[in-house]
Amino acid sequence: DTKLKIFSLESNHPLADEIAKHVGLPLGKSSVKRFSDGEIQINIEESIRGCDVFIIQSTSNPVNDHLMELLIMIDALKRASAVTINVVMPYYGYARQDRKARSREPITAKLVANLLETAGADRVIALDLHAPQIQGFFDIPIDHLMGEPILSDYFLEKEDIDLDSLVVVSPDHGGVTRARKMADRLKAPIAIIDKRRPKPNVAEVMNIVGDINGKTAIIIDDIIDTAGTISIAAQALIDKGAKEVYACCTHPVLSGPAFERIENSAIKELIVTNSINLPQEGRPAKIVQLSVAELLAQAIVRIYEQESVSILFD
Amino acid sequence: DTKLKIFSLESNHPLADEIAKHVGLPLGKSSVKRFSDGEIQINIEESIRGCDVFIIQSTSNPVNDHLMELLIMIDALKRASAVTINVVMPYYGYARQDRKARSREPITAKLVANLLETAGADRVIALDLHAPQIQGFFDIPIDHLMGEPILSDYFLEKEDIDLDSLVVVSPDHGGVTRARKMADRLKAPIAIIDKRRPKPNVAEVMNIVGDINGKTAIIIDDIIDTAGTISIAAQALIDKGAKEVYACCTHPVLSGPAFERIENSAIKELIVTNSINLPQEGRPAKIVQLSVAELLAQAIVRIYEQESVSILFD
Ligand SMILES: Nc1ncnc2c1ncn2[C@@H]1O[C@H](COP(=O)(O)O)[C@@H](O)[C@H]1O
Ligand SMILES: Nc1ncnc2c1ncn2[C@@H]1O[C@H](COP(=O)(O)O)[C@@H](O)[C@H]1O
Repeated sequence: DTKLKIFSLESNHPLADEIAKHVGLPLGKSSVKRFSDGEIQINIEESIRGCDVFIIQSTSNPVNDHLMELLIMIDALKRASAVTINVVMPYYGYARQDRKARSREPITAKLVANLLETAGADRVIALDLHAPQIQGFFDIPIDHLMGEPILSDYFLEKEDIDLDSLVVVSPDHGGVTRARKMADRLKAPIAIIDKRRPKPNVAEVMNIVGDINGKTAIIIDDIIDTAGTISIAAQALIDKGAKEVYACCTHPVLSGPAFERIENSAIKELIVTNSINLPQEGRPAKIVQLSVAELLAQAIVRIYEQESVSILFD
Repeated sequence: DTKLKIFSLESNHPLADEIAKHVGLPLGKSSVKRFSDGEIQINIEESIRGCDVFIIQSTSNPVNDHLMELLIMIDALKRASAVTINVVMPYYGYARQDRKARSREPITAKLVANLLETAGADRVIALDLHAPQIQGFFDIPIDHLMGEPILSDYFLEKEDIDLDSLVVVSPDHGGVTRARKMADRLKAPIAIIDKRRPKPNVAEVMNIVGDINGKTAIIIDDIIDTAGTISIAAQALIDKGAKEVYACCTHPVLSGPAFERIENSAIKELIVTNSINLPQEGRPAKIVQLSVAELLAQAIVRIYEQESVSILFD
């Protein structure tokens, strides 16, 4: 019989603490330090022999440090005789480098998959991968969870929103499936923002396919990074007659000018999850952060108990 | 017939430029940028189809960024149909994590070897690995070059040094082989600093095995990091009667308080190589940096021409 142990690395301690509480276990004792020259030093401070170990780490910014922490931790666990090493990656960094868009580009999302396997990961638990195809980059089992139900539930339970006047908006063609899922749950229609550049070096035109007039629009995306697209999209929706605009995403990367752009945008509220740990400083009050801890805790327990996690998928 | 191409990554542009000049080729065109969220974006800006490619990268501080740059570059080269991918790592980061000194430690030097192979490296050219055993961490060919002859030649050609009164000092038992090599080349005797802690929680005693009285001592090490040991060793040599103390090493990691310690130490001159790019700012004038560019250029050309590189080993 194996034992379940959960370890947190450095990217998202609050989420890891919450997950451990939901599972009903203390986090495993380990430390991540830096040598004077910046090299990572990991110490696992309790035996993990005979254990199914789950490591919680988002490879968010600083992505290279977080990824190396993860790989080194996997190496240490493997050498310390863990029975299985399960990597919980609420946010999968480098996911947008998932194909050769131009000649001589790397496919870093695939490289990361290979690195995790090489280090010794037995299984990956991911959340809203930028492309579901990334599952196929792995030769080990991968469970792919969705944040959309958590985001949808927020709107379903929201008191000051008129559920009958909603429209769910995909900010691009790639996100229509996700928008469709949310629309089904909210029993709302969808619209699609159809960006086109009429000629090279001419500004993009934001066409909106679908009826948004007088409606409360909810833009849904997987990642919001610099918040450029989402801010422009929100303004376009308002300009074309939407009553108000909410935005939501699973992964609040929110780099560079994101906080400022969101603050100054037409977005009424931005709903995100805690897959990435956000700084308090400078964070606009209109950002609402929902927790994926219970979802991930359920996945961990079900995997440990060798039960299907597909029940968590929708 | 293949073509030779050399690319530089971000860790050590001056060294890469010098190597390319010695080889007589321009560096390949590529760019390494950061997306807003810190993810690395690599572009290879010329065809490398049918080429034997050499990448120059020291995995020095910031080690995780430099390592990921390297892995992503290898991935991109592989997908762009390089014939062979040869990794020139003048400094191999994480080399000191080469064994389990305690329970549940990672062996990160081995992890790095596995990551390089997984990414697609065909061959590694390294310089003074912290432990020669790291060669055995690879299943691909590895050429292991030595900086000692370059350091020794400096002393042999130095005008204001009395070659007849030299003693080469190893700062610990692990470095005796290296000190022996230098001593042979300088036709000098060796001494060893024999650190002992008489009781737990009592300060270490620096015993010196060998005759140093009235002599010019040259301490040789592979890596000088925070410069704590070397500064104390230099003082111990002076206290025990050495006339003057030089120190030398291949890899000037020189992190944290190193510059200050060297400046304030009994060391007359510190001779290092350019395996790691050192900042000018704050650098003590007594640091002399010798170039390994010609050595590495010769290795690259010989490997490309499929000639033995063993001639470069001593
Ligand atoms: N970290 C990143 N930040 C911004 N853009 C990225 C990043 N990683 C990849 N990309 C680019 O984003 C595009 C992929 O996004 P998408 O078309 O939405 O799948 C590609 O053109 C990539 O070059
Ligand atoms: N980057 C580093 N900085 C300082 N010490 C390190 C580093 N990496 C490993 N070590 C430690 O250095 C020791 C190995 O050095 P050595 O005994 O000289 O081979 C081990 O105890 C490691 O824990």
